[in-house]
Amino acid sequence: MVAVAILAAGRGTRMKSRLPKVLHHLGGRSLVERVLTCASVVQPKRQLVIVGYGGDLVQQSLSHLPNVEFVEQTEQLGTGHAVQQLMPHLQDFEGSLLVLNGDVPLLRPQTLTALLATHQTNGNAATILTAQMPDPKGYGRVFCDGNNLVTQIVEDRDCTPAQRQNRRVNAGIYCFDWHQLAKVLPQLESNNDQQEYYLTDAVNFLSPVMAVDIEDHQEMFGINDRKQLADAYEILQTRIKDDWMRAGVTLIDPTSITIDDTVQFGTDVVIEPQTHLRGQTVIESGSRIGPGSLVENSQIGENVTVLYSVINNSVVKANTQVGPYTHLRNEVEVGQNCRIGNFVELKQAQLGDRTNVAHLSYLGNATIGKRVNVGAGTITANYDGVKKHHTKIGDRTKTGSNTVLVAPISVGEDVTIAAGSTVTEDVPNDCLVIARSRQVVKPGWRLKPDEPAT
Amino acid sequence: MVAVAILAAGRGTRMKSRLPKVLHHLGGRSLVERVLTCASVVQPKRQLVIVGYGGDLVQQSLSHLPNVEFVEQTEQLGTGHAVQQLMPHLQDFEGSLLVLNGDVPLLRPQTLTALLATHQTNGNAATILTAQMPDPKGYGRVFCDGNNLVTQIVEDRDCTPAQRQNRRVNAGIYCFDWHQLAKVLPQLESNNDQQEYYLTDAVNFLSPVMAVDIEDHQEMFGINDRKQLADAYEILQTRIKDDWMRAGVTLIDPTSITIDDTVQFGTDVVIEPQTHLRGQTVIESGSRIGPGSLVENSQIGENVTVLYSVINNSVVKANTQVGPYTHLRNEVEVGQNCRIGNFVELKQAQLGDRTNVAHLSYLGNATIGKRVNVGAGTITANYDGVKKHHTKIGDRTKTGSNTVLVAPISVGEDVTIAAGSTVTEDVPNDCLVIARSRQVVKPGWRLKPDEPAT
Amino acid sequence: MVAVAILAAGRGTRMKSRLPKVLHHLGGRSLVERVLTCASVVQPKRQLVIVGYGGDLVQQSLSHLPNVEFVEQTEQLGTGHAVQQLMPHLQDFEGSLLVLNGDVPLLRPQTLTALLATHQTNGNAATILTAQMPDPKGYGRVFCDGNNLVTQIVEDRDCTPAQRQNRRVNAGIYCFDWHQLAKVLPQLESNNDQQEYYLTDAVNFLSPVMAVDIEDHQEMFGINDRKQLADAYEILQTRIKDDWMRAGVTLIDPTSITIDDTVQFGTDVVIEPQTHLRGQTVIESGSRIGPGSLVENSQIGENVTVLYSVINNSVVKANTQVGPYTHLRNEVEVGQNCRIGNFVELKQAQLGDRTNVAHLSYLGNATIGKRVNVGAGTITANYDGVKKHHTKIGDRTKTGSNTVLVAPISVGEDVTIAAGSTVTEDVPNDCLVIARSRQVVKPGWRLKPDEPAT
Repeated sequence: MVAVAILAAGRGTRMKSRLPKVLHHLGGRSLVERVLTCASVVQPKRQLVIVGYGGDLVQQSLSHLPNVEFVEQTEQLGTGHAVQQLMPHLQDFEGSLLVLNGDVPLLRPQTLTALLATHQTNGNAATILTAQMPDPKGYGRVFCDGNNLVTQIVEDRDCTPAQRQNRRVNAGIYCFDWHQLAKVLPQLESNNDQQEYYLTDAVNFLSPVMAVDIEDHQEMFGINDRKQLADAYEILQTRIKDDWMRAGVTLIDPTSITIDDTVQFGTDVVIEPQTHLRGQTVIESGSRIGPGSLVENSQIGENVTVLYSVINNSVVKANTQVGPYTHLRNEVEVGQNCRIGNFVELKQAQLGDRTNVAHLSYLGNATIGKRVNVGAGTITANYDGVKKHHTKIGDRTKTGSNTVLVAPISVGEDVTIAAGSTVTEDVPNDCLVIARSRQVVKPGWRLKPDEPAT
Repeated sequence: MVAVAILAAGRGTRMKSRLPKVLHHLGGRSLVERVLTCASVVQPKRQLVIVGYGGDLVQQSLSHLPNVEFVEQTEQLGTGHAVQQLMPHLQDFEGSLLVLNGDVPLLRPQTLTALLATHQTNGNAATILTAQMPDPKGYGRVFCDGNNLVTQIVEDRDCTPAQRQNRRVNAGIYCFDWHQLAKVLPQLESNNDQQEYYLTDAVNFLSPVMAVDIEDHQEMFGINDRKQLADAYEILQTRIKDDWMRAGVTLIDPTSITIDDTVQFGTDVVIEPQTHLRGQTVIESGSRIGPGSLVENSQIGENVTVLYSVINNSVVKANTQVGPYTHLRNEVEVGQNCRIGNFVELKQAQLGDRTNVAHLSYLGNATIGKRVNVGAGTITANYDGVKKHHTKIGDRTKTGSNTVLVAPISVGEDVTIAAGSTVTEDVPNDCLVIARSRQVVKPGWRLKPDEPAT
Repeated sequence: MVAVAILAAGRGTRMKSRLPKVLHHLGGRSLVERVLTCASVVQPKRQLVIVGYGGDLVQQSLSHLPNVEFVEQTEQLGTGHAVQQLMPHLQDFEGSLLVLNGDVPLLRPQTLTALLATHQTNGNAATILTAQMPDPKGYGRVFCDGNNLVTQIVEDRDCTPAQRQNRRVNAGIYCFDWHQLAKVLPQLESNNDQQEYYLTDAVNFLSPVMAVDIEDHQEMFGINDRKQLADAYEILQTRIKDDWMRAGVTLIDPTSITIDDTVQFGTDVVIEPQTHLRGQTVIESGSRIGPGSLVENSQIGENVTVLYSVINNSVVKANTQVGPYTHLRNEVEVGQNCRIGNFVELKQAQLGDRTNVAHLSYLGNATIGKRVNVGAGTITANYDGVKKHHTKIGDRTKTGSNTVLVAPISVGEDVTIAAGSTVTEDVPNDCLVIARSRQVVKPGWRLKPDEPAT
């Protein structure tokens, strides 16, 4: 059985924020949510988040996740003190306890799996995650014998010059046999410079203690300020983008692109510069997205092009062209082989296949059929100042330029709406509808400086 | 006489693509097209592309280039085998054969010129392109005497530790005396680990063989996956952008800008961040493009500003301001001193000098005179559902806000169109045209929740 | 008393520009203006800019700054010759002379303060700014005794191999006792390779001469071509962005963001990728700007969101949402809790709190009340071809879709304008206004290929 504890009580003063540090976002999720999600790989029986500063906010922010327990650490007296707070909660627990840090968000699931496997296979009292750091300055050094059994952990400031050469450092992530840890936790003392209780001291009381190296030392990157938050984002992005390039996605100028780790791609997708793909987004094969686009929580079908557009919570089907300068939001569904064009906003609208909305239009709360041609400047007047109303347009209908459709309204199939018409009443199938004035010419008219404008 | 052969038969499995590797694009052209274009510097009498996987697609993709011959290599049995396929095609050929790789797209033309010159001046049997690699790991090492005559080529895996210190590597690009090569090609054997026929073995049978170093080892960068495709693009972009900066173009944040190698600039041009210049584009002196703009196959005159806009296949003349959020496409021609503004799309439209289309307009299939003021929301209804029709507007005419011009239509000079008019019939010179209803006020009216919307 | 002299006479041939080098811009200000602004930290009594090539342009460009004197250097005969030109102008001056370079724009004010303090505290005849360069190649080396007293300055080309190891280089920035310098300036000779008068020769005649190291050697980065201009911009941007991240601003993908050094931020601001903040801009706490936005000389209140938009010279108050695809310009003021949306341009417009302009609208020269709903496609016809006119809309009024308001016009409070209306006359409070035609249906109508369009 496995329990996971996450240290998330610190304020993170160097963030200079009203938010507790672990609630800052990295690629769409908070730091602490990232750590929790990563830990789910070991299928923990118990998940305990140790909270302190802004504890209510942390608790709220994780309320969508099941089976998370919150343990309060009122004072911040060190990592050992934090883990001591678990004792009343884990009284009857038997098994392994993983101790993670809420501000170390780049850990890979497989690293935790390996740590736990080593811990359990060897029957260790404690297993420490370590890394070989190119520049170990500032980190505690871990010394092991030939079997990776820890002989000593020395803080950087206490290292001899020879010890300082050791580049194997303590990542601050541990797996304990809870039963043995619980016995030694009460013995921790705070008689050190910082007057804190250190979890590493607990390690000294236990045996055998083994170390496991992380292959990629960037996984132990911790966040203390917004520069490090930006650095962590860059590491995460490089990881995600390199993986997708190796899997067959073309990224043009990858450094200018951001991709959340929740996004999925088909084959032979091309992402152009300055494109941002976020949330539960899927881009199917052969599609080309960007430059300058933001796609969030949306499904983009095969062979779609999206150019300088914003798409939220929507579905775009195969072979459709979107943009430039299009905004799809709130559950739009665009059919196959459509063209959604320049300066067009769709909101809660469903469009059939081969329908075009090519210029300067706003369609909200609308159901549009197949092979409809929505003329330039067509607007659904969906809001009467109090409620939103629905517009329906049948197959093969054409709206003229600058048509207004005053909702609630239903326009039939095979209808032609004359340019400049404001349509206020339902329109049957197979007709021409016109609602405009005849043209009058006043010859010889010229604007004079003090004449009123027209 | 020179013949060029390009190895382009491989699938490129690591691209994870339905396309053969050499058809992937780098800065607007496929890899193999880049290599062919580069080789044109030596004015080859014959250009032979050795195709295999997806050979039809490769052949199609190069069909716009004259005098390219395609040689089929049905099985992929190594570089020597590929070159053996040339034998029936070059039976009567006398002269030098350049052997290039279709997936090595960063070669500079002057490198090929130098290789060929060295080859011919020295009467070599073969001349090998080599490079001094900072990290030669994985490459075949080339050993020469003091006169650059090759004494030995050793694969990385066969190198002694001493040989491994040699950083001069084989770029895989060769110039052969065809006559001598043709004699030894039949002698190649595939009794090696990979069971392939190696072209380097042919080199061993020939004499004298000379090596020529590339100055910039990045020219031999080969592409095997999409990460390397992105890396090659970065190298290419740095090359192009550094050259233009040295030539007097200001790039603000150059890493965010991409410029195809077909683009030309006048002096004192400023390119703002996140701007992409592609195809046969010219930006004349004093213009400022960006941020956030895409200009493709277009001519931008002197002192033009383009801000957050997309311009395709169009001409913009001097002193005109474009954007933000403008789309010019399909042979638009905008005169001098115009203002084309916010949320405006022009398509197949010609605009005279000093004409403004400042807001929320779509003009398609239109000829607009000089000093015309196109009011906000003006739309040419150019499409009747079957055909596109033309709109003509004379000099000094003003269209009112939300004017619709139902094409085909011709509006004269010095006309004023009243705001809100839908104009369906031709309008003579020098008049006011109005097509709208009088305003009616209903006092005391208030929307009630269950009243119909207006 | 302190005088500042700035060398700004060179053409800067490698800039390949019609502008003199010191007038090229770096982050919104010219190089020479940056140097002048930096020097203001020492509160100079006299500010002398030594001009030559394009001197008139340099003088014009600085005309907004008070108390700047211009000294002409007709021929470009070296740094010593440049400073000799000061002699008639500083005849009666007593005190310290700071000599700065107009093309070295990254100096920090505190560096000049420290240089001057060292100079005056020690009663030096001259004090030289130096830096420890990682790669000192090409720079003159400065040799000092244990008290930082300069013993020798040796040009790179004249260095012995041992001297070349010295990485302390001359930054070309000096503080002189003017009285002593004026005495030795006439003794300078030009009997060297370049036939120029060197200011370093003057240093040789003076004593004591002390050196002061800059902590950050990038401050002495000089600009000779556009590549170096881009490099300097990157250094400047990294400096600005790192400072703001440390101060509590979240930058997502900082390398894609640019921020002028005149911009100010509240706490917990998030800047998304590809966002550019320029001029006298303030972003208050909790706001989120970008991606893809340009904000210039504008005040953004608390908890505002700006998405893919351009904002110039405007004010946006708290809790308002802007974008995507919005353009605010020329003294727009948007109230609190507004929504300014898709494809909307505001120009010289004031909007009250809780007013929405959500889609496809242009409001120019307008005063809009509180809780107004501006319907999609609403346009103020503010320009009659000769003059701009004003539009006023009262509180709680709703304009229908595709409304045109022909200015000058005043619409009262609690008015409803029917969709598709062109409103030309003033509207009282509390009414419905309608200006459109009734809808007519022609059954059985179908477009035939040769029928006129509608």
